[in-house]
Amino acid sequence: MATVVVDVMPKQEILDPQGQAVVGALRRLGIEQFSDVRQGKRFTLEVEGEITEDVLEAAREAADTLLSNPVIEEVVSVRAQQDIDSVRAQQEPPA
Amino acid sequence: MATVVVDVMPKQEILDPQGQAVVGALRRLGIEQFSDVRQGKRFTLEVEGEITEDVLEAAREAADTLLSNPVIEEVVSVRAQQDIDSVRAQQEPPA
Repeated sequence: MATVVVDVMPKQEILDPQGQAVVGALRRLGIEQFSDVRQGKRFTLEVEGEITEDVLEAAREAADTLLSNPVIEEVVSVRAQQDIDSVRAQQEPPA
Repeated sequence: MATVVVDVMPKQEILDPQGQAVVGALRRLGIEQFSDVRQGKRFTLEVEGEITEDVLEAAREAADTLLSNPVIEEVVSVRAQQDIDSVRAQQEPPA
């Protein structure tokens, strides 16, 4: 079992009222460090077996046709979970 | 200007009807590779200046208190965008 991760965000030129609401709510909580917040979507797609180039191609097609609305959103990345994990292991020193 | 990325997903034991709807829609589009899909949220938080440990701590607090509902969701990661980009550059050979 392997996982493909698809990240989708609102396009930069599109207003993001949900993100703006988060900025306001953070200020009310006393968290002032963040000047802007944008909210997008993250999908995990489970595959039986290995992630081949065919599987990634199917995930890209899914991302472009169903998981995002190309008028207002952009697909930020389509990646195998194992690649994300290996990177994280490199960055974080063992506890 | 720098960016912190927060990823939030529904907990594994929680049903995800949106994800199930995506699986059904993919099948109808002829994309059969994926046995399960889960839909979560991805936030980008903009910071004026650099990402220090204080900023990451504020982002973690925001993630735990406002960006996720701890009863049904888990915070998958809180990371600086620059770390994600540097990893991606390592993985992808230049075109």
